[in-house]
Amino acid sequence: MLSLITRPALSKYRSLWRSSQAAVRAMSSSGGPSPPYTTLAVSHPAEFVTHVEFHRPEKRNAMNRTFWREMVELFNELAVNPDCRAVVFSGAGEVFTAGIDLMDMANDVLQPGGKDTARKCWQLRKKIVAYQETFSVLERCPKPVVVAVHGACIGGGVDMITACDVRLCTQDAWFQVKEVDIGLAADVGTLQRLPRVIGSRSLVNELALTARKMYADEAKSSGLVSRVFPDKEVMMAGAIAMAEEMAARSPVAVQGTKINLLYSRDHSVAESLDYMATWNMSMLQTDDLMKSAQAAMEKKSPKMVVFSKL
Amino acid sequence: MLSLITRPALSKYRSLWRSSQAAVRAMSSSGGPSPPYTTLAVSHPAEFVTHVEFHRPEKRNAMNRTFWREMVELFNELAVNPDCRAVVFSGAGEVFTAGIDLMDMANDVLQPGGKDTARKCWQLRKKIVAYQETFSVLERCPKPVVVAVHGACIGGGVDMITACDVRLCTQDAWFQVKEVDIGLAADVGTLQRLPRVIGSRSLVNELALTARKMYADEAKSSGLVSRVFPDKEVMMAGAIAMAEEMAARSPVAVQGTKINLLYSRDHSVAESLDYMATWNMSMLQTDDLMKSAQAAMEKKSPKMVVFSKL
Amino acid sequence: MLSLITRPALSKYRSLWRSSQAAVRAMSSSGGPSPPYTTLAVSHPAEFVTHVEFHRPEKRNAMNRTFWREMVELFNELAVNPDCRAVVFSGAGEVFTAGIDLMDMANDVLQPGGKDTARKCWQLRKKIVAYQETFSVLERCPKPVVVAVHGACIGGGVDMITACDVRLCTQDAWFQVKEVDIGLAADVGTLQRLPRVIGSRSLVNELALTARKMYADEAKSSGLVSRVFPDKEVMMAGAIAMAEEMAARSPVAVQGTKINLLYSRDHSVAESLDYMATWNMSMLQTDDLMKSAQAAMEKKSPKMVVFSKL
Amino acid sequence: MLSLITRPALSKYRSLWRSSQAAVRAMSSSGGPSPPYTTLAVSHPAEFVTHVEFHRPEKRNAMNRTFWREMVELFNELAVNPDCRAVVFSGAGEVFTAGIDLMDMANDVLQPGGKDTARKCWQLRKKIVAYQETFSVLERCPKPVVVAVHGACIGGGVDMITACDVRLCTQDAWFQVKEVDIGLAADVGTLQRLPRVIGSRSLVNELALTARKMYADEAKSSGLVSRVFPDKEVMMAGAIAMAEEMAARSPVAVQGTKINLLYSRDHSVAESLDYMATWNMSMLQTDDLMKSAQAAMEKKSPKMVVFSKL
Amino acid sequence: MLSLITRPALSKYRSLWRSSQAAVRAMSSSGGPSPPYTTLAVSHPAEFVTHVEFHRPEKRNAMNRTFWREMVELFNELAVNPDCRAVVFSGAGEVFTAGIDLMDMANDVLQPGGKDTARKCWQLRKKIVAYQETFSVLERCPKPVVVAVHGACIGGGVDMITACDVRLCTQDAWFQVKEVDIGLAADVGTLQRLPRVIGSRSLVNELALTARKMYADEAKSSGLVSRVFPDKEVMMAGAIAMAEEMAARSPVAVQGTKINLLYSRDHSVAESLDYMATWNMSMLQTDDLMKSAQAAMEKKSPKMVVFSKL
Amino acid sequence: MLSLITRPALSKYRSLWRSSQAAVRAMSSSGGPSPPYTTLAVSHPAEFVTHVEFHRPEKRNAMNRTFWREMVELFNELAVNPDCRAVVFSGAGEVFTAGIDLMDMANDVLQPGGKDTARKCWQLRKKIVAYQETFSVLERCPKPVVVAVHGACIGGGVDMITACDVRLCTQDAWFQVKEVDIGLAADVGTLQRLPRVIGSRSLVNELALTARKMYADEAKSSGLVSRVFPDKEVMMAGAIAMAEEMAARSPVAVQGTKINLLYSRDHSVAESLDYMATWNMSMLQTDDLMKSAQAAMEKKSPKMVVFSKL
Repeated sequence: MLSLITRPALSKYRSLWRSSQAAVRAMSSSGGPSPPYTTLAVSHPAEFVTHVEFHRPEKRNAMNRTFWREMVELFNELAVNPDCRAVVFSGAGEVFTAGIDLMDMANDVLQPGGKDTARKCWQLRKKIVAYQETFSVLERCPKPVVVAVHGACIGGGVDMITACDVRLCTQDAWFQVKEVDIGLAADVGTLQRLPRVIGSRSLVNELALTARKMYADEAKSSGLVSRVFPDKEVMMAGAIAMAEEMAARSPVAVQGTKINLLYSRDHSVAESLDYMATWNMSMLQTDDLMKSAQAAMEKKSPKMVVFSKL
Repeated sequence: MLSLITRPALSKYRSLWRSSQAAVRAMSSSGGPSPPYTTLAVSHPAEFVTHVEFHRPEKRNAMNRTFWREMVELFNELAVNPDCRAVVFSGAGEVFTAGIDLMDMANDVLQPGGKDTARKCWQLRKKIVAYQETFSVLERCPKPVVVAVHGACIGGGVDMITACDVRLCTQDAWFQVKEVDIGLAADVGTLQRLPRVIGSRSLVNELALTARKMYADEAKSSGLVSRVFPDKEVMMAGAIAMAEEMAARSPVAVQGTKINLLYSRDHSVAESLDYMATWNMSMLQTDDLMKSAQAAMEKKSPKMVVFSKL
Repeated sequence: MLSLITRPALSKYRSLWRSSQAAVRAMSSSGGPSPPYTTLAVSHPAEFVTHVEFHRPEKRNAMNRTFWREMVELFNELAVNPDCRAVVFSGAGEVFTAGIDLMDMANDVLQPGGKDTARKCWQLRKKIVAYQETFSVLERCPKPVVVAVHGACIGGGVDMITACDVRLCTQDAWFQVKEVDIGLAADVGTLQRLPRVIGSRSLVNELALTARKMYADEAKSSGLVSRVFPDKEVMMAGAIAMAEEMAARSPVAVQGTKINLLYSRDHSVAESLDYMATWNMSMLQTDDLMKSAQAAMEKKSPKMVVFSKL
Repeated sequence: MLSLITRPALSKYRSLWRSSQAAVRAMSSSGGPSPPYTTLAVSHPAEFVTHVEFHRPEKRNAMNRTFWREMVELFNELAVNPDCRAVVFSGAGEVFTAGIDLMDMANDVLQPGGKDTARKCWQLRKKIVAYQETFSVLERCPKPVVVAVHGACIGGGVDMITACDVRLCTQDAWFQVKEVDIGLAADVGTLQRLPRVIGSRSLVNELALTARKMYADEAKSSGLVSRVFPDKEVMMAGAIAMAEEMAARSPVAVQGTKINLLYSRDHSVAESLDYMATWNMSMLQTDDLMKSAQAAMEKKSPKMVVFSKL
Repeated sequence: MLSLITRPALSKYRSLWRSSQAAVRAMSSSGGPSPPYTTLAVSHPAEFVTHVEFHRPEKRNAMNRTFWREMVELFNELAVNPDCRAVVFSGAGEVFTAGIDLMDMANDVLQPGGKDTARKCWQLRKKIVAYQETFSVLERCPKPVVVAVHGACIGGGVDMITACDVRLCTQDAWFQVKEVDIGLAADVGTLQRLPRVIGSRSLVNELALTARKMYADEAKSSGLVSRVFPDKEVMMAGAIAMAEEMAARSPVAVQGTKINLLYSRDHSVAESLDYMATWNMSMLQTDDLMKSAQAAMEKKSPKMVVFSKL
Repeated sequence: MLSLITRPALSKYRSLWRSSQAAVRAMSSSGGPSPPYTTLAVSHPAEFVTHVEFHRPEKRNAMNRTFWREMVELFNELAVNPDCRAVVFSGAGEVFTAGIDLMDMANDVLQPGGKDTARKCWQLRKKIVAYQETFSVLERCPKPVVVAVHGACIGGGVDMITACDVRLCTQDAWFQVKEVDIGLAADVGTLQRLPRVIGSRSLVNELALTARKMYADEAKSSGLVSRVFPDKEVMMAGAIAMAEEMAARSPVAVQGTKINLLYSRDHSVAESLDYMATWNMSMLQTDDLMKSAQAAMEKKSPKMVVFSKL
């Protein structure tokens, strides 16, 4: 498996791993969710890096109604918090997530009120839109989100990770587009985003139409994840190191990059170039450009440059 | 090569292979096309699974005018036939298909009637649109189509398989976007769909602009096919097993999944999420949801659940 | 590494390599830019094949203002030159390109005239649009462009190669989306085209948000390049051989293929099929079709067919 | 009212009216539907002009299931019939149409089979799509369709006329988007096409949300119809005269115009110009161009030019 | 002027006017904003009809920061309030609105914090998006909004009314796209929506590029408003009567109509028909359909039908 | 007719007429084209206003090959010329334009070189695209273009005026979409832009499919022109006065308005709002805003404000 990480990258993570061990252990020892949240633990393992941990380990991080709500609250906050320049998202406990908490959500989905079909549909549609929103906030947050998956990532978990910017996983991770197994077409993002994040439509269709599991090797070769790590500890070090790299660079550049990458996903090349030019006509006037260019010429690390808040 | 199939999958297909041998042999012994069709053999190797075999082996399954017409008729029928929930498509004889039957179609394409350029164009355009339709029916049919390729898949064959949902092939399969070799730009789907089904545009361009052959290994690594099998017999067992998996699940879920996957291919993520919510506001009210969820919780196979016809 | 080239292809390039050595050496011995160009050397290594070499080796092929202008001039000329049917683009000296020549361009980007923010933006936008145009001409030129990368390909180099049709590289090549390192979001094509040419969005995001280097192996497995060669000499032979293949076929077919591949990138499948039919209703009436079809049936090489100029 | 027709036009129609009286009377005396149709009477009041009359006068031309089916059959035939170059559509009896025949269609819409909500929706969707198709054939038929409305045009009637190319009416005509009155959102075209054919969105919304009647004057001033005639007889003469004008011109020009007008409705200006250029690169090579240009220079009427069939 | 109201409509409003006088007077005597709002007065002049009055008469209803915020709060509430089925919006005092309250908003727009151009832009963009949102809530609210304009409607007022569904005005009303007069391109909706609500692009451009005033007659003939009333009292009666008509019909039908009209504005006809079919496959199963159809057949007013809440 | 001009506007033009008489006469006395142009006379009747006169009166301003070329050259120059802030376009002599100069252009269109259909098409397509470009430069020029039409405006003339921003005409003007009369579908803009500039699609279709003439009254009521003037002299005074109004305002505001109006024509409202916000995040920081706002508060005319060059 180790061959999956390019050698220079690996040695880098090894050394990072050591220096980040304290941080990682601190995280591991986190006593649980960060108030006011009850499903999410928020910490700051490195400068300008926010670590969000899905924390319902006793329920295998099943997504309950509280989780859906808290995600929107937290990421809307992170979107405007100048002290957050990159996010790492992971799951506490044995698996990343078991997907939707059917027990908790049954009322919502299975028993819409009233007798009139149209009115039941109306209520259901509002709920689906609200659930979709939960993951769309990950995209609308202009700060990059690195998601680190270990163990199982099932159903809603796949919907969620496809809305993140970078996907990493451990060698023991597996992914399952579970929805057809429980009688529905996946409706909170997988069918919309999965074909855009991996390069084989045949594979996308196979996964979505048969609900079979996909393991780490195939996730890597298909492009779903861009790196596979031997275990969770190394992965967390790698994820935080990557987030640090992002957080160390000009937030004007990094967040503008994320915004324009998402724009170009949904528009033609010509339209996207036009938008980009209109975006950068002002953003190129940032002081960060001169600071960064100078540091680059002096072979300084971006981490040594101080950028104003954004 | 075998490494191309993940180990658990392989052992699964091995056992499937045995249990499906009878079915596969029955298929192999098919005496030829199923009336009223003269180029297509239709059989039912498993419950709710339709096997369509392109059957002009003596012509290396070259696509003649009859084939183009029969494809539309058959798949329009399958689209509404409630006893069909998944389709396997393969070719009889030594190769999948040699592509367009130039002899048979020369009149159509090479000699449009009349002398006026505009009127010749007008007639040609109607024919091209009709040929395009032949493969677009594969997409419009809401039941998943698994295509199993062995030996050569040339020209029109590539146009065709890119309109299927899942692509499988044997180790000896090869693919060729042949059209530039005979002086035309491929016009029945390859240039439109191939870039959407594999992840390397450089490769797409190379194949389409040089007409070079691509072999199974590259087809797998590029994502054109999601699985490679050692030989045709094992592939057919695997294809039918996969189709059975699809056919065993709620047709409301499976067909809704196909429809929304295709929708999202051609729309932005935001538009596709909106469509999905509007779709599922009613589809979530299906009884299949409860049946499937219950089976899932009881760890039953979906094959044990009985769904109403759709 | 050699395993990255399929065996039959390799032996082909080996023999090509020998027969093309003269041509390649001739190229290598090129004394520099072809007047009136001062940054580009233009040669004709094979019939209907134009080789464009970026030639500022003493500046590691940094992209200065002259280069941006000359690219537009040259490719607009090649677009209508009937003696050019395929283009190979490469870099002279030790690396493909070090990206933008910051020293030369600082005035343009860093010091737009005037004091009024809006007016400075207005001027900057015009410049960005002009720079974008430099690479968009590669797409608008209907002749295929094969780009051959060795050594470093940094910043603007990535913007550029994603606008080419086929990407090849040597084993020692590396790629870097450098822009965030100097404080800006890449604005001349990378964010718009890179996600469309490779199959892993997680990787695209990682590269663009961290500016890390990507080496040849990952470039191949991710689909950025479709072939990796052991060294520059073999690559150049391979690139020219590939361009010869394209140049040998009907220019009506080849250029129509490029135009429609680009069209389908930015439109839905249905729209692209419609455009294709409207395109081919006339293009199928070319004499090239009969000539090519006949040669194909007689198993002749396309190189033996003479096509009229286009 | 007469002021609504420009004076030169009126005197023209007056004289046309006389010369066309025979034809119009012949039409009026039509004994009913033309077999095999039972709801549509088809006649040929002028060269290359087809007159289609909705003929269920005893039911106020209510749209029953037979009508929906016959429309598709007829217009698919007219689309390829070279003797038809323009179509006039009108209604027999006292009104243009009373809209959907609720009695006849109640089963279809009100009682979809089965108990499962999802399956009932699935069936309903197929029916809605089929009904939509009934009017979309008017657009897909490349021959211009002039619709002539007298008396009431209610519900489905508005859906229908917005899919025609030119709308005319009598002074006593009125229009009503009736659907909200019977508890549904109009779903066979009005909400999609009405805003595109008239210039006041406030008016569109008012009509669709209140179901109020709109009379001829407002229909003219809002642009729904381009001409208002004093009575049905004059209108029919005018409609046929207009269709004759269209039918007299090059069918390559006229039908290409219709196709491109519809294309541009649904695409950006840039895309539509591109499509137009690709269309006309061949269509300009028609002999009709020379014939027409010569006639124009010689001040001959287009009616004196003989064009080949298309 | 009275000729601008069709005669039957006028007599209807006359009688309405009398019966509605009490309500209208009640409204007129409103003591001011409805807590917790300080710029908006909310009342219920008829069943299921909400009247929202912009109430800063002493400031000529200039749009201050409070107004922008309260609009979002109120319309998000109305969007889900089942007792609201239609909305009338008007302005208190002498004019509809004088547009943006420059004094109050100067800080926001003219003095974004910080020194770095990029960061100032970033803040400004967030504010513009927030202001745009203020009027987009009018569209996202599925209940129809009838806006009644008297006196001046300047700058932001035009942005706002173009986001409403139906526009009415008094004979003394005038409209002014004021933005170029104060040195900016209108950025909260006018340039995006005005060309879609009126039928003359020449007029749109003239208004937006010269900031000239447009009076009631031209507003009517251009389609900006669909009705002109002699004075405010008659207009308010007419507006409320119209809202009552909307509120009396099935909310499933009316709100589905609004949603699909907006959808079709921004999508092609084919896409909009597809969405409509997917929408109505469930909505046609409403009990409202039977209730409404029965009432229609019995010639009962929709007001006599009782629909469940939505 | 005079009623077509609103009274206040008329009296304004009357007085303008007097004060502008000198300018207008100067223009009238223009000795002909302005070198180096041979078909275009360029003058400066007011500050920052450029008047472009089509000047081939002896050929009724027929559009010859020189004209097509010169238009591109001139408007590309005006696009970047800071002394031009608004353009008036008119025709010299008795009519605005007789349309394409068939004699001059026959070679281009009627006799593309070569024998191969595909190659002839290829050449024709390049020419059509080039002709389309002639009028698209009017749109790409960010300065507003007011076109003033007198007498005949035929064929290419309609293509042209639909690409201008504001259309004015004299009472004796008439318009004719002539193309079907000479056997072709209009391909340089009419079919793409006419439906977007007027509000009645029935009228657009009627005009394009029958080639009938439309007179000034109908041009006004349909919205093609926004004003009708009694004669050319008054119209020219009015056109220049209108251009002065535009030229007097902040060029940042005016040109940003044109750019965003065109953007919103071809994009959805949501996309257009997003683009607008991204545009104005920098443009709002212009000094023009403060200058203009202050002048507005002091009730000064914009003409008294001095704006920096753009």
